[in-house]
Amino acid sequence: MTELITSPHNQLVKTAAALRQKKYRDELGLFAVEGVRLAEELVAAGWPAEICLFTAAAADNRRAAEIIDRLAGGRCRLAQVSDALYAKITDTQEPQGLMLIAPVRQTPFAAALTGPRPSLIAVLDGISDPGNAGAVIRTADAAGCSGVVLLKGCVDLYAGKTVRATMGSLFHLPVVAGMADGELAAALAAAAIPLVATAAGGATDYTAADLAGPVAIVFGSEARGVSDRLLASAAARIAIPIYGRAESLNVATAAAVILYEAARQRRPTL
Amino acid sequence: MTELITSPHNQLVKTAAALRQKKYRDELGLFAVEGVRLAEELVAAGWPAEICLFTAAAADNRRAAEIIDRLAGGRCRLAQVSDALYAKITDTQEPQGLMLIAPVRQTPFAAALTGPRPSLIAVLDGISDPGNAGAVIRTADAAGCSGVVLLKGCVDLYAGKTVRATMGSLFHLPVVAGMADGELAAALAAAAIPLVATAAGGATDYTAADLAGPVAIVFGSEARGVSDRLLASAAARIAIPIYGRAESLNVATAAAVILYEAARQRRPTL
Repeated sequence: MTELITSPHNQLVKTAAALRQKKYRDELGLFAVEGVRLAEELVAAGWPAEICLFTAAAADNRRAAEIIDRLAGGRCRLAQVSDALYAKITDTQEPQGLMLIAPVRQTPFAAALTGPRPSLIAVLDGISDPGNAGAVIRTADAAGCSGVVLLKGCVDLYAGKTVRATMGSLFHLPVVAGMADGELAAALAAAAIPLVATAAGGATDYTAADLAGPVAIVFGSEARGVSDRLLASAAARIAIPIYGRAESLNVATAAAVILYEAARQRRPTL
Repeated sequence: MTELITSPHNQLVKTAAALRQKKYRDELGLFAVEGVRLAEELVAAGWPAEICLFTAAAADNRRAAEIIDRLAGGRCRLAQVSDALYAKITDTQEPQGLMLIAPVRQTPFAAALTGPRPSLIAVLDGISDPGNAGAVIRTADAAGCSGVVLLKGCVDLYAGKTVRATMGSLFHLPVVAGMADGELAAALAAAAIPLVATAAGGATDYTAADLAGPVAIVFGSEARGVSDRLLASAAARIAIPIYGRAESLNVATAAAVILYEAARQRRPTL
């Protein structure tokens, strides 16, 4: 049954609006997914939606209506809201009028060991830009990674901008959030997966490094790079050569170049 | 001599504010470069600045002061403005209080033939997002491209967001804007440079394509891809395989993967 919400003081509306803040996402263990495409990806991945908020206009859209119909058969709470109310809860500039609220997942590191072999794990260290973090998750998915790790100190995986930038890849492969660097180093050692760090100084050209076997590759921020602690525990340091006069590459770009080099090297096994 | 501008009706202030719009950039043949880093890049490239607007706070910054001093020795008009006035003209969220106004360049295609050999030219078709267009220019610079072409229909090269996303690479290598696709095809034919199109269907894996010789690689938008006309004139079609469940790659990411594959293949000559 679909509720009809007209009051801005309604608790569902307040909850949805609050989820734009990390504090409330952490407290409630929920996050919001907006737009038809992302909602389709969440549902297709079997990730349970608890609440679905939509406008009348969204209900008239065929793809949005299909999602709403499908959720109506389950335990998801459905509520129609006015455009004005939707505008109060959206985190996007051009809202499509469809929002699913779903439980966050604490994906264990072990999940990243169950995917494609040999394991290829992308690790982000100190990445604070949600667009960059999301873009790396999308690229890691495309390149056939077995998982992604966002170390403690990275942007929140469940921030609206991060989720949108993943273009749904967040729902495709294990993304582990909030590990400390020491914890990661121990987990990799236990799984016999070497850590390779991207670094500017004293590094091997990325095409000369062996990325065909099991490997975790850590990418740092443009400003600070990979932490000294992780650099110290890395089996190798790799870098992308700069042939022109650009000072550096964006982290999402660098990750794409390196993860696809790993894919190229391991192609026979894919 | 530095002018001190206090009135929002001052013509320089009005001009600077107007340059946020393409209409006025085209009309005046000028564009704005904001921030210390980009201003340094423009000056270092010998690109003439006609006007320099800065706040008192910027003049206290060592790097900004060096730029202002250097420009004071030439023909650049210098003007100090209040923070409030600067806020009226800036195109950025967190202004650094330093803006250079410089003439736009109509870079001829021939300039892209004078750079590193064998020629490696990145061509953008229908790219409307300034962040993506700028990111490709930055990556093309890093990967050692001889030039970049933004075909007619792409975002304005001189829009503030495009300029910022290039991170200064706009000043490092020839970037040709506004060519029609037929004009590009003719120019490439005359220079005996084959065109390779990125495409989803019926395409060769990008690592199997020969990208070591002279080549122009065209990248289309995620929504529409490369135009039929350019696809028809392409010597080859290449694609990046998707190993996971991502639907596609962002165009800036795809360009990075392919341009660095070209760099890898031509490494012995670089």
